[in-house]
Amino acid sequence: MSLGDPAGIGAEVIAKSWARRAEEALPRFFAVGEVAAIAAAWNGPVAVINEPAQAAAAFDTALPVIAIGNSAATDGEDDLVGARNALDALELAVGLTRSGAASGLVTGPVSKSRLHAVGFVHPGQTEFIAERCGVACELVAMMLTGPTLRVVPVTTHIPLAEVPGALSVERIVAKARAAVRGLQRQFGIDEPRVAVAGLNPHAGEQGALGREEIDIIAPAIERLLEEGMAATGPHPPDAMFSALRRADYDVALCMYHDQGLIPLKALHFEEGINVTLGLPIIRTSPDHGTAFDIAGKNIADPDAMIAAIRTAGECARRTAS
Amino acid sequence: MSLGDPAGIGAEVIAKSWARRAEEALPRFFAVGEVAAIAAAWNGPVAVINEPAQAAAAFDTALPVIAIGNSAATDGEDDLVGARNALDALELAVGLTRSGAASGLVTGPVSKSRLHAVGFVHPGQTEFIAERCGVACELVAMMLTGPTLRVVPVTTHIPLAEVPGALSVERIVAKARAAVRGLQRQFGIDEPRVAVAGLNPHAGEQGALGREEIDIIAPAIERLLEEGMAATGPHPPDAMFSALRRADYDVALCMYHDQGLIPLKALHFEEGINVTLGLPIIRTSPDHGTAFDIAGKNIADPDAMIAAIRTAGECARRTAS
Repeated sequence: MSLGDPAGIGAEVIAKSWARRAEEALPRFFAVGEVAAIAAAWNGPVAVINEPAQAAAAFDTALPVIAIGNSAATDGEDDLVGARNALDALELAVGLTRSGAASGLVTGPVSKSRLHAVGFVHPGQTEFIAERCGVACELVAMMLTGPTLRVVPVTTHIPLAEVPGALSVERIVAKARAAVRGLQRQFGIDEPRVAVAGLNPHAGEQGALGREEIDIIAPAIERLLEEGMAATGPHPPDAMFSALRRADYDVALCMYHDQGLIPLKALHFEEGINVTLGLPIIRTSPDHGTAFDIAGKNIADPDAMIAAIRTAGECARRTAS
Repeated sequence: MSLGDPAGIGAEVIAKSWARRAEEALPRFFAVGEVAAIAAAWNGPVAVINEPAQAAAAFDTALPVIAIGNSAATDGEDDLVGARNALDALELAVGLTRSGAASGLVTGPVSKSRLHAVGFVHPGQTEFIAERCGVACELVAMMLTGPTLRVVPVTTHIPLAEVPGALSVERIVAKARAAVRGLQRQFGIDEPRVAVAGLNPHAGEQGALGREEIDIIAPAIERLLEEGMAATGPHPPDAMFSALRRADYDVALCMYHDQGLIPLKALHFEEGINVTLGLPIIRTSPDHGTAFDIAGKNIADPDAMIAAIRTAGECARRTAS
């Protein structure tokens, strides 16, 4: 687990997750990051380890940490030092997972603007991890999951006005493939049911309220069916997230960020986690940010981090078996 | 209450609502529409009345109905006869409410495409009612409400690609005014708290993911504050519908149809109702359609219709006091 930005709540929720390891029946884990950030957020036992193999023995009595020190050469503002530290931790954690020394990666929250200020060129951690794993970003899918809903947005962090132009049959099909394979391999769902959302109100009403359903989304669904996937749609976006409809599919393929994130957070704000599908490794993260405003106050809720750890462990067991 | 399309579930849910009048403590009401449509859906007692004043005496023992017959001159297809009937019922029901003979209007579901086939030129019932009340459509707001959320979309039934271009400071301010006044007059909320949504992911991240928040939405909020309204935002759309955030406002002003309808239906699919604000009359409706596929099977759920009747009654009491 990478701690994320040392000034955020990452260290706190990771430490609190360790403290609840028994009651939550969590798999063993170790942190990668700045030991001082953990000490600042939490006064429980920490075991500094040198390599992943030492984590198992230490885990029962202390939170194992592979320490990433702040480079003395970094003589910038505190927040930029922290961003560099977060990036170093992420890089090492990805490498350890790639090598097989860890069976899955859970990433703590980072500040994108601070990372960009220290020369990070990727839109977010996911794209960085994909690159380190040698996978093109288009083949990776971000899946947000809660207890009753999984969503995969086809487009993510772009202005709403650019969404219609960014949609294509190829893009929708690529995201659906990544979602289906990931659900098969990591979630043990043999034939994932994919509900493909429309883009427009009422899924366009046969073209009266927009043609993307006819010109792009329906042809993409045709392709998915030809490839043998259990795809349905285009579904009217407002109706497909009701409790009744959610029971009909394993994942909702959404056309834009908020189409998927609004229902997920409305229903599962405290428990939402992010799973990256399409990578050669398992990667999850809690679906919250650094929360700088509440960091250091010991009020951060570890539920999403606990869910991210549990899901990573479950995926690792399924992949290994 | 207008029955809506006689081939839909309107008559059934209205009759079922009457049957549950005591346990639900519903205010007295009467239906306007085709008696045969009620008889086809329900075998309970019906009292055909000639004018609204007779409804009160009849209500305890039968569902009062002002009958709208199908014109013998209408020699078209069945569904077009039904659409004309629905329109006649709506027109009479609006007129009776305008005149004060009824203290509020609840409309049953209609088929827009069938109405358009018989020459109806309005986008929906709401615009027809606004015209009959002498109010410009821009000054009317559609508010969808459930037990823990009220939303008012600024734009409604237009393609998603047209949403950014349809937003303006004036349009946002007009919808906010209609929402605030309606909540004050009909819902008894002295100082309604209006949460204004952003348009883009993360509300645009200071312009990095779109400029509408900076150029249009924030200036509109400024205007609302100048007018003394309790407006906040632009809020990141994905986070503002969590249970915690919903407690912070009385209504969410949404930039497009699905931004408001997705969370409302995800949370409150069975209970959602539509309230038209900005009219000189009270008007509510259940937030579901004609459901032709289940009509006549006696399986339609009257919960949303019951909620629409109850809300209309509550609004009428507040407006009268």
